[in-house]
Amino acid sequence: MIFENYDRIVFAGDSVTSMGSNQPVGEGLRDNVGFGFVRVIENLLSAFYPEVILRITNCGVSGDTTVQLLDRYDHHVVDLKPDWVAICIGINEVWRQFDSPAMQELHVSPEQYRANVEEMIRRVKDTVKGILILSPYMMEPNREDPMRKRMDEYVEVSRQIAEKHGCIFVDFQKMYDEYCQIRHNCYIAWDRIHPNQVGATLMACEVLKHCGFDFGRLAGTGSL
Amino acid sequence: MIFENYDRIVFAGDSVTSMGSNQPVGEGLRDNVGFGFVRVIENLLSAFYPEVILRITNCGVSGDTTVQLLDRYDHHVVDLKPDWVAICIGINEVWRQFDSPAMQELHVSPEQYRANVEEMIRRVKDTVKGILILSPYMMEPNREDPMRKRMDEYVEVSRQIAEKHGCIFVDFQKMYDEYCQIRHNCYIAWDRIHPNQVGATLMACEVLKHCGFDFGRLAGTGSL
Amino acid sequence: MIFENYDRIVFAGDSVTSMGSNQPVGEGLRDNVGFGFVRVIENLLSAFYPEVILRITNCGVSGDTTVQLLDRYDHHVVDLKPDWVAICIGINEVWRQFDSPAMQELHVSPEQYRANVEEMIRRVKDTVKGILILSPYMMEPNREDPMRKRMDEYVEVSRQIAEKHGCIFVDFQKMYDEYCQIRHNCYIAWDRIHPNQVGATLMACEVLKHCGFDFGRLAGTGSL
Amino acid sequence: MIFENYDRIVFAGDSVTSMGSNQPVGEGLRDNVGFGFVRVIENLLSAFYPEVILRITNCGVSGDTTVQLLDRYDHHVVDLKPDWVAICIGINEVWRQFDSPAMQELHVSPEQYRANVEEMIRRVKDTVKGILILSPYMMEPNREDPMRKRMDEYVEVSRQIAEKHGCIFVDFQKMYDEYCQIRHNCYIAWDRIHPNQVGATLMACEVLKHCGFDFGRLAGTGSL
Amino acid sequence: MIFENYDRIVFAGDSVTSMGSNQPVGEGLRDNVGFGFVRVIENLLSAFYPEVILRITNCGVSGDTTVQLLDRYDHHVVDLKPDWVAICIGINEVWRQFDSPAMQELHVSPEQYRANVEEMIRRVKDTVKGILILSPYMMEPNREDPMRKRMDEYVEVSRQIAEKHGCIFVDFQKMYDEYCQIRHNCYIAWDRIHPNQVGATLMACEVLKHCGFDFGRLAGTGSL
Amino acid sequence: MIFENYDRIVFAGDSVTSMGSNQPVGEGLRDNVGFGFVRVIENLLSAFYPEVILRITNCGVSGDTTVQLLDRYDHHVVDLKPDWVAICIGINEVWRQFDSPAMQELHVSPEQYRANVEEMIRRVKDTVKGILILSPYMMEPNREDPMRKRMDEYVEVSRQIAEKHGCIFVDFQKMYDEYCQIRHNCYIAWDRIHPNQVGATLMACEVLKHCGFDFGRLAGTGSL
Amino acid sequence: MIFENYDRIVFAGDSVTSMGSNQPVGEGLRDNVGFGFVRVIENLLSAFYPEVILRITNCGVSGDTTVQLLDRYDHHVVDLKPDWVAICIGINEVWRQFDSPAMQELHVSPEQYRANVEEMIRRVKDTVKGILILSPYMMEPNREDPMRKRMDEYVEVSRQIAEKHGCIFVDFQKMYDEYCQIRHNCYIAWDRIHPNQVGATLMACEVLKHCGFDFGRLAGTGSL
Amino acid sequence: MIFENYDRIVFAGDSVTSMGSNQPVGEGLRDNVGFGFVRVIENLLSAFYPEVILRITNCGVSGDTTVQLLDRYDHHVVDLKPDWVAICIGINEVWRQFDSPAMQELHVSPEQYRANVEEMIRRVKDTVKGILILSPYMMEPNREDPMRKRMDEYVEVSRQIAEKHGCIFVDFQKMYDEYCQIRHNCYIAWDRIHPNQVGATLMACEVLKHCGFDFGRLAGTGSL
Repeated sequence: MIFENYDRIVFAGDSVTSMGSNQPVGEGLRDNVGFGFVRVIENLLSAFYPEVILRITNCGVSGDTTVQLLDRYDHHVVDLKPDWVAICIGINEVWRQFDSPAMQELHVSPEQYRANVEEMIRRVKDTVKGILILSPYMMEPNREDPMRKRMDEYVEVSRQIAEKHGCIFVDFQKMYDEYCQIRHNCYIAWDRIHPNQVGATLMACEVLKHCGFDFGRLAGTGSL
Repeated sequence: MIFENYDRIVFAGDSVTSMGSNQPVGEGLRDNVGFGFVRVIENLLSAFYPEVILRITNCGVSGDTTVQLLDRYDHHVVDLKPDWVAICIGINEVWRQFDSPAMQELHVSPEQYRANVEEMIRRVKDTVKGILILSPYMMEPNREDPMRKRMDEYVEVSRQIAEKHGCIFVDFQKMYDEYCQIRHNCYIAWDRIHPNQVGATLMACEVLKHCGFDFGRLAGTGSL
Repeated sequence: MIFENYDRIVFAGDSVTSMGSNQPVGEGLRDNVGFGFVRVIENLLSAFYPEVILRITNCGVSGDTTVQLLDRYDHHVVDLKPDWVAICIGINEVWRQFDSPAMQELHVSPEQYRANVEEMIRRVKDTVKGILILSPYMMEPNREDPMRKRMDEYVEVSRQIAEKHGCIFVDFQKMYDEYCQIRHNCYIAWDRIHPNQVGATLMACEVLKHCGFDFGRLAGTGSL
Repeated sequence: MIFENYDRIVFAGDSVTSMGSNQPVGEGLRDNVGFGFVRVIENLLSAFYPEVILRITNCGVSGDTTVQLLDRYDHHVVDLKPDWVAICIGINEVWRQFDSPAMQELHVSPEQYRANVEEMIRRVKDTVKGILILSPYMMEPNREDPMRKRMDEYVEVSRQIAEKHGCIFVDFQKMYDEYCQIRHNCYIAWDRIHPNQVGATLMACEVLKHCGFDFGRLAGTGSL
Repeated sequence: MIFENYDRIVFAGDSVTSMGSNQPVGEGLRDNVGFGFVRVIENLLSAFYPEVILRITNCGVSGDTTVQLLDRYDHHVVDLKPDWVAICIGINEVWRQFDSPAMQELHVSPEQYRANVEEMIRRVKDTVKGILILSPYMMEPNREDPMRKRMDEYVEVSRQIAEKHGCIFVDFQKMYDEYCQIRHNCYIAWDRIHPNQVGATLMACEVLKHCGFDFGRLAGTGSL
Repeated sequence: MIFENYDRIVFAGDSVTSMGSNQPVGEGLRDNVGFGFVRVIENLLSAFYPEVILRITNCGVSGDTTVQLLDRYDHHVVDLKPDWVAICIGINEVWRQFDSPAMQELHVSPEQYRANVEEMIRRVKDTVKGILILSPYMMEPNREDPMRKRMDEYVEVSRQIAEKHGCIFVDFQKMYDEYCQIRHNCYIAWDRIHPNQVGATLMACEVLKHCGFDFGRLAGTGSL
Repeated sequence: MIFENYDRIVFAGDSVTSMGSNQPVGEGLRDNVGFGFVRVIENLLSAFYPEVILRITNCGVSGDTTVQLLDRYDHHVVDLKPDWVAICIGINEVWRQFDSPAMQELHVSPEQYRANVEEMIRRVKDTVKGILILSPYMMEPNREDPMRKRMDEYVEVSRQIAEKHGCIFVDFQKMYDEYCQIRHNCYIAWDRIHPNQVGATLMACEVLKHCGFDFGRLAGTGSL
Repeated sequence: MIFENYDRIVFAGDSVTSMGSNQPVGEGLRDNVGFGFVRVIENLLSAFYPEVILRITNCGVSGDTTVQLLDRYDHHVVDLKPDWVAICIGINEVWRQFDSPAMQELHVSPEQYRANVEEMIRRVKDTVKGILILSPYMMEPNREDPMRKRMDEYVEVSRQIAEKHGCIFVDFQKMYDEYCQIRHNCYIAWDRIHPNQVGATLMACEVLKHCGFDFGRLAGTGSL
């Protein structure tokens, strides 16, 4: 597994990352780390790699776009001296274009989005062991839906950034597309964005698959 | 996997089973199924076996011993016509002997415990596909601790019952003993009984290991 | 306008009808009538037909399918001696098939749905001045979406019933289809079902269009 | 209609404008815009002019007279760069003279009122497309009532100001006088000031009548 | 003073009587007797006639008309074996005609009102020392107001009943008419019905004036 | 009566003055003026002198001794430009000596008390029409009780100060002594300090007796 | 000590006994036993006699006189099969005579009090190991105070009953009299009845002194 | 006894000291001093040494290690000018090493612990009458438990510090070890750290034993 003893892994993002975490920074005892995919990741790592001590920090803040995240990035991410940074952002840039069309200051273009995420990478790349780019997504199987279509542009940008900077790329959109071929999206979210615990479990495993996590440990076989 | 499409699986037990579920019967939308190992089981099944529709019902009630559970068993378990029944009971029979020594009507002896659990098995064995006996436990590595020592008697009884009746036996005590060799029990519970989310994850995977669950699916290597 | 002085109009339905009304029967002072389309209808009638005294009663109950509504129908609708009955039901029959696939007792087939609605009509048709059938709907423009597709079956059933029994038919599905060609559905609902105030306004006007309501009165050009 | 794509319309006023809005500035998602006539205006514009994106901002604050509104005017109105400003103020200047006779610093004379409102107009008139002056009112049909009599002076001042500065004038007092000839004022307000939803609907339509709103759209005829 | 040691005085009525009292019967320690005129009466009697022990019981229930009051009268008034009964009822019979015109079952005609109040008198007149009829009222100085006009009919009925049955008659309407010639009604009530503490004080003294209460005791002179 | 149109009367004191008032300064609409004797004074003045507009301001703060009151006196009393000041202070100076004997910084000696009250008088005497000194008190009839004995020293100091500076002196201690000869103190207070509404009524009338208030007005015999 | 292993000790009484206990019967985990002297007794027994398992049950109910206690006595005391019963009652019989003089049905005479307590003794004396009569009291050192004087009658009755029936008698009145010679009663109670934690500690030790409790154990010396 | 009239005793510590006290400094009326052993100490001193006035101040703050306590020490301890200081700290230094292994900044080594406590002693030793060092502890009888083992190191350090500086040393660990030989630790704490009221009683007596407290006073014998 890529994470080593005493590594600190900081998850930066919006409400999908936060899901009830102590905002703007949540970690440690009680429910500070929230109820979303970050917590499931921590659960799986702590349950099945007890010999590796890891510090999981949730820096998700509800409603954030890259604009707000970048504003607080030095204070809430860089200053924490993370060993790993995972960034899951972009959903609100798209969503606000459709649910709040009149509030144009909340609409972040793909170009701004690209610039902002790259700036986030730049600020930590020399001091971390690795960066994970977790794609934005919409649990909408219809690719002609205008919001899904727009989201695809941002997913593509995030993929390109990950590639350009050698980050680990986790494609949540693809994962949800596959899942929603079998179960309807309303089974895992009311609004096609905020996952319930099933969705959080899917996302956590998707992330861990890219981190060399040995799922055989869950089966007690040590390896599959 | 042993569970088939449209199977109903009923989890009967105490607060460790309930963990915030809608008491006495919780299932379906929202947080009705609680926050404990039952929910993690449902999360993993729903996330990685989307093609199998399963009904998970949480019938845990805080504070129950076999005496109370048996009292409500027909109404809360049998009447639900389960395909599978999982019973996790016995902790309170022991705990009350130590935290409430004067309240003797709450102390259930190993003999009564054995008789009660066997009665529960009898009432459903002809109508279900299978029964899981989940052992009671105490997250106390010191086997000389009087409460742990006493708990071991009940764990042993539960193992014997499972064997006698051909039930699937899940040994939570053994699982916790192994985990606590690496991490201190205070990492997963305040009181050595009620697990946090890490403990719930351990317990869920331990149960699923005995159910033919293909953990390879989490790694993306399993087959659908 | 079709409503006359002292007419009582009873709206029967589910959460879309209720929207915060006093359940199971809400009317009169304060917010008893809820915050949904029923209230907007009452607002428009009271504001622009002050000379006509009308009694608007909201009998919507969250989560109802035709099964539950029929169960309580005599008590909550027939006994109120309505002059007009408006029925908006069918959404939950479809929704539960997708968000709760394991809970089969909540899945109402189109045939049951048809039978139930026709029974509701039969029980009041001889004593009321008229019946409005308000179609179920999903604010999902993609007709290939499985839930939308399924919903279309129920919409069609409701249309056939209305025709067969000479009821006024209000096609909410068609109305939302047209609106969502211009604005994305996330502008009017989080979950493609429960409308915000904009949606409630659209629905109220759609109903009133079929009731001979003179919208010229709003412009000050109507006659009193 | 006078409002064009992406226009921002700011409603400045007191509790009648606010009616539960997020104070001092409320707009966008959830109930930020409150439950009063401003919301009904937004509902009607969004429902029937979906092709025109408008930003409705509620700057009403409970208890405000022109003194407090002017104090915060630069920050809460001018700085928002509105395209249209609607001002509904004056009720508290009169009310406090009668319900708090000893608190003279809260009593604003017609002269001060005139000067304050004119100052508000001056500060935006060169940068907005238009200004709406919404008259204060009391739902008191008896013109000899001392408070109504006093209110009439302020209504008259507001009318004169609108005329002098070429503003759109909306006469809420006249509208309520007509309505109250048919229904008693207690049907739409407990205190003859704060309208319920019926009153809010009346006020919203009264405003929109002066904005070229095509109410024929509600009837689906496009024009009456 | 007409009240003697150990007399029990029961006040029956609606929300004006109750004003926060423990419904349906409030008396004794804490705020059980409410915050309205009944409490001010108890305060004045207890403060200035400490040598006379009196039991004041508040049987006011919000929203009551004579129909509801009569329904509960045996249980909440007669069974208490009062020495004196004071009845203040009639406001809701009129109010509902104007704020809820469609809910006709709530409209009590003057004839029914008369019959109901007389029935209340009949049920206690042989067992009590005296009966006080406290008139309904509306703090509306304009006698042409339709609700005030209608209220005057009920005030008149209550006066006639008092005279016919030899009850003490307290004319709250007249008292408020006089007060409102000096202060505007909005000084003592938001809705022209529910008095604030000033109004409660006026009403209490008006009642006590008819009970031989020696106000000179307040001045320390014993008599005026 | 000594109070004239538009006079402002400021009541400075501790919890007995405040009794739930908006701290540190409460006046005007709603319950800002609290529920104690200050409110009863305002009720009686407003009810029976409607032609005289008076501003009653409650500056009582729970727990205050003269030390705290003097600290905030300029801001909460002098700056309000009162026409009359009423000071009721001294209870906590004594009480803390008995219920908190170890917290010596809360014990104010009679000398400090005298100096503090005189300083309060000096700061306003040239700008007000008059000053009322309301004595501290303990509803303890046993003059040998150590706390009552100690209180008597402060009552005496307050009387001397009032005399020396020509203030109106209201002797609450004497008033309660007389009342408690008839009713037990537990009838008007739980703790022999904080009066219930009966006590507040007694205190209000005691104050008004020294202000030329015509109690004949309550009986309808006074003249306007 | 008089209490033996597995003895059940039931405390019956009013709010002084209950002090926040789970009413009507509180015992076992959490704060069920309340915060009063019963809890301090349980604390001392559990802390210093860990080898003796005792069941302490709090059956105090706020406001009870002997009338209410007797009513519920079979159900809340006798049915629990106590080994010891401690009865502390009588305060409310006296208090209500002074704080609620008009509510005569709440006033229990010394004769009734005697009969009621004797009845309580009769119902358990043959089945218990012993009965403790805990005297009522008032923390009022002035024996001429009318309520104290009246309380003394009931204290005397309780003493006589204890003697007559061979019960252990605990004289709380005497204990408080001695304590209040040094500290003022306001140090241990606001209302001279409900003790704070200091008072609860005094009462608990006073009871235990009569039970052969070895206080030397607290000092670690084992015996005095 | 070592405490003299008007001595101030300050208890500095963590949640075990605070137990619900007003943080960071709690003393005086109401529950400011919390519900833990500090309160029981105050109860016993106040109850049985009423002639000695003592000021007990609780400066415990939940979660504190010596690092946080030292940070706030000047402000919360030294500035209060205590006559006696009692320090109970060290539990969190150990606990965080086991329940939060990744949060290394919370782990305080025995050396740092020693240095910090000695610094606390140095800052007050010249101005106080005496210092009490109350040992940290874990209610875990198994000395091989890793957390208990680690705790023993800190207990030993605290003992050495006490000896070196001539402080009174109270060994809570030893006291609990003895108690837990008889009763299981789950009888007095859920988490082996936070005592219930029984534990608080044990701790309070253990402290007082070292302060010359005469427990004979509880027995009424005055001396042992």
